[in-house]
Amino acid sequence: MGKRRQLRLGAMLHGVGSSTSLWRHPDIQADASTNFKLYREWTRKAEEGRFDLVFVADGLYINEKSIPHFLDRFEPLTILSALAAASGRIGLVGTLSTSYSEPFTVARQFGSLDKISGGRAGWNIVTSPLEGSALNFGPKRHPEHDERYRIAKEHLDVVRGLWDSWEDDAFPRDKERGVYFDRSRLHELNHEGEFFSVKGPLNVSRSPQGHPVLFQAGASEVGRDYAASEADAIFAGHETLEEAAAFYADVKKRAAAFGRNPDDLLVFPGIGPIVGATEEEAERKYREAAALVSAEDALLYLGRFFEHHDFSQYELDAPFPELGELGQNSFRSTTDRIKAAAREQGLTLRQAALQAATPRPSFIGTPEQVADRMQAWFEAGAADGFMIGSSVPRALEDFIDHVVPILQARGLFRHEYEADTLRGNLGLPVPENRHAAARRARQADAPAPSGA
Amino acid sequence: MGKRRQLRLGAMLHGVGSSTSLWRHPDIQADASTNFKLYREWTRKAEEGRFDLVFVADGLYINEKSIPHFLDRFEPLTILSALAAASGRIGLVGTLSTSYSEPFTVARQFGSLDKISGGRAGWNIVTSPLEGSALNFGPKRHPEHDERYRIAKEHLDVVRGLWDSWEDDAFPRDKERGVYFDRSRLHELNHEGEFFSVKGPLNVSRSPQGHPVLFQAGASEVGRDYAASEADAIFAGHETLEEAAAFYADVKKRAAAFGRNPDDLLVFPGIGPIVGATEEEAERKYREAAALVSAEDALLYLGRFFEHHDFSQYELDAPFPELGELGQNSFRSTTDRIKAAAREQGLTLRQAALQAATPRPSFIGTPEQVADRMQAWFEAGAADGFMIGSSVPRALEDFIDHVVPILQARGLFRHEYEADTLRGNLGLPVPENRHAAARRARQADAPAPSGA
Ligand SMILES: Cc1cc2nc3c(=O)[nH]c(=O)nc-3n(C[C@H](O)[C@H](O)[C@H](O)COP(=O)(O)O)c2cc1C
Ligand SMILES: Cc1cc2nc3c(=O)[nH]c(=O)nc-3n(C[C@H](O)[C@H](O)[C@H](O)COP(=O)(O)O)c2cc1C
Repeated sequence: MGKRRQLRLGAMLHGVGSSTSLWRHPDIQADASTNFKLYREWTRKAEEGRFDLVFVADGLYINEKSIPHFLDRFEPLTILSALAAASGRIGLVGTLSTSYSEPFTVARQFGSLDKISGGRAGWNIVTSPLEGSALNFGPKRHPEHDERYRIAKEHLDVVRGLWDSWEDDAFPRDKERGVYFDRSRLHELNHEGEFFSVKGPLNVSRSPQGHPVLFQAGASEVGRDYAASEADAIFAGHETLEEAAAFYADVKKRAAAFGRNPDDLLVFPGIGPIVGATEEEAERKYREAAALVSAEDALLYLGRFFEHHDFSQYELDAPFPELGELGQNSFRSTTDRIKAAAREQGLTLRQAALQAATPRPSFIGTPEQVADRMQAWFEAGAADGFMIGSSVPRALEDFIDHVVPILQARGLFRHEYEADTLRGNLGLPVPENRHAAARRARQADAPAPSGA
Repeated sequence: MGKRRQLRLGAMLHGVGSSTSLWRHPDIQADASTNFKLYREWTRKAEEGRFDLVFVADGLYINEKSIPHFLDRFEPLTILSALAAASGRIGLVGTLSTSYSEPFTVARQFGSLDKISGGRAGWNIVTSPLEGSALNFGPKRHPEHDERYRIAKEHLDVVRGLWDSWEDDAFPRDKERGVYFDRSRLHELNHEGEFFSVKGPLNVSRSPQGHPVLFQAGASEVGRDYAASEADAIFAGHETLEEAAAFYADVKKRAAAFGRNPDDLLVFPGIGPIVGATEEEAERKYREAAALVSAEDALLYLGRFFEHHDFSQYELDAPFPELGELGQNSFRSTTDRIKAAAREQGLTLRQAALQAATPRPSFIGTPEQVADRMQAWFEAGAADGFMIGSSVPRALEDFIDHVVPILQARGLFRHEYEADTLRGNLGLPVPENRHAAARRARQADAPAPSGA
């Protein structure tokens, strides 16, 4: 009996939520964004629900117009390391930018997290869409879009090289013979590139997963190529099955073109399911959350995608303004979508802003309805799994209590973890150490020893 | 009744130890340097012993000659964050270099750790003595000794400024009025300096300690001035009471000269106590550990302090070689001491190397003898507390089980934690937010409102 392909689930941990106003809801803990007890509770709940992973997003620039969660939140590596000690099986994935970090430090911190957690670390690689980031890392300047991906590529080459500094069997720690490490299993990197020069070796041994799992969320042409050639998983943001399926087919095709097995690249659309005992209850939950958003908040929210553009200068009920190239250097795909929707649906600024700030989720209804839709996306080739975000209070808890059992009963989701590591649970291969692989290849090529 | 001044205790967590050969001891777990369970056990043990803090050292460059613990160890921020979740009251102090980090990232990671741990974070500020560090952070070059301290000063100015981005009451999170944060309590930094330009604000609110506790371990002139003007605590390395007392008096005098209360600068000599039921048992423990060190290992150990100089080129039993300026740009005070001892005691290379690699600790003997000596240092003005390292197996456990109760019985050490935060337990003031302080000053200066 062939084992049925199952879907994967991740939980976004985002404090008071990634909206402008959810924090005002009476059922939301207003200090959630830096409340460690809550982060721990959510992680344990997701682990009870047999989720593959929790995910922490990140950003490097705020100003007074940023949404509440962005103003005051945990730094990903520290919160994930704390959660590692407070959980046992669930994966721990965090965002870190290649534009504003040193590969040696990134390799160490994720390598160390992978060891602390027993092989549960993942890195969501971003290039920092916000131009303001450079202001906090001066005298550095903000690289333009495609250069950011060139830096990202070299950065990741270095990080991967450092993760292979030590082969898996590099530390015999033989007390009798006095051999702590095996010199032949230690490799300097000696990288000299356009952006980085890094000698190595890394001062932490190879971690349980070999390389922590690599996530990516690029959506532009160059972003998709980067993800398709480098990442283990893609974090996507599409509203309809058609868009999601087109994206899915596109990145899988790109992965194949790069000589990869497309099954080794998992696609996770991010969704914000709203579940109710009845359809009406779910709708009510949505409307209650949407009603918290003022037009002013919605404009600020919109501005965030457009390099903190000040939308309050326009007439609220006039047609959506002409913005030219604005938004091309940061959240390009999102801004293109907002512009296209405004044009095609003839929206006013107010309508476009409210729509952007409180989109009606595609996954809303009774637990069966939400499970049906997830199954439809999964079986239509639009998703290998989903990242579950929270757009109403207790969204994660309700999803786990009511939707997960249905997915399990249908054989679409696990009852128990299959493995101890995140790679194991995701069904992803452990990358072989490059030096061990090279030696294997050399030995296979070598002529058989002569009889002499 | 005046409260008696009490001493402070920290535990160095350093895996298989900071010696070349202790890992070979039958009672040492050979994988200790990256064994999370052990780190957790030690931290909990230290917390049971009412220690103020655990401490994690760090370095950014290794090669095949590095001592075992340095080759494969946890990165400080990640391991301390994990330990935060596994402990409740003990402080968590880690080393991070100002020469190879971005102030924005440092402020965030320590700020985040301080929030996760409920106010238990500390930063040991180092400037990276090892020239090799630059090779892992290229194209950066290694700044020379005094420039490193200029960078460290500006770096810390920025980090402190970022920690003051938000005043303590900046987040009313008032759901009724829709006020998440108070704009008048948010401050951009707008730092433009010689080495860094950082706009701010930081994207994490002010943490429970205001500023995490600042440790420093500089020993040179410029290093002492830096510590005396900037640090909350100094980590010192002296072998005799006389040296330690001279250092203590020197840095306290410097602190006073900088206009500080010398009591707000705590001095912690690092010691490696060896405790036995009898003097003979303690001596036996020392000899067993020392016997594990080969002359070859001792030369490698020595080389580490001298910029990885290759000492195997010299005759082992000839007088200690003339090294000129070697060692001046890294561990200057240690190398000066080694050179002086060799000269004054007429040591051969072998003798000097073994002495450096397995120094006979000043704190050795029965629990009473070790407690007596600690009390003598404490009362003679050579220490405000001690950092306890492990030079034999179970050194920390034996110290806690046998020496701590004596110190407690003598009224020299606490029975219970006095506070929830590290600053609270160390008796250090919480730095007032600079903007709140400025406003207070303005209000005090302002003329009383006129009756009109
Ligand atoms: C679901 C999703 C999550 C994302 N999370 C982050 C994040 O945590 N931090 C970040 O800087 N960017 C994040 N991004 C932005 C992407 O990294 C990327 O910059 C953006 O999708 C634009 O794509 P492009 O860079 O290929 O143009 C996310 C994007 C998506 C679609
Ligand atoms: C007890 C002690 C602990 C130290 N720990 C570290 C450390 O963890 N990482 C590091 O790079 N340097 C460490 N150092 C080195 C100091 O940071 C400093 O570079 C050295 O003492 C030389 O002093 P100077 O920089 O003022 O010349 C330590 C020094 C001492 C005395």
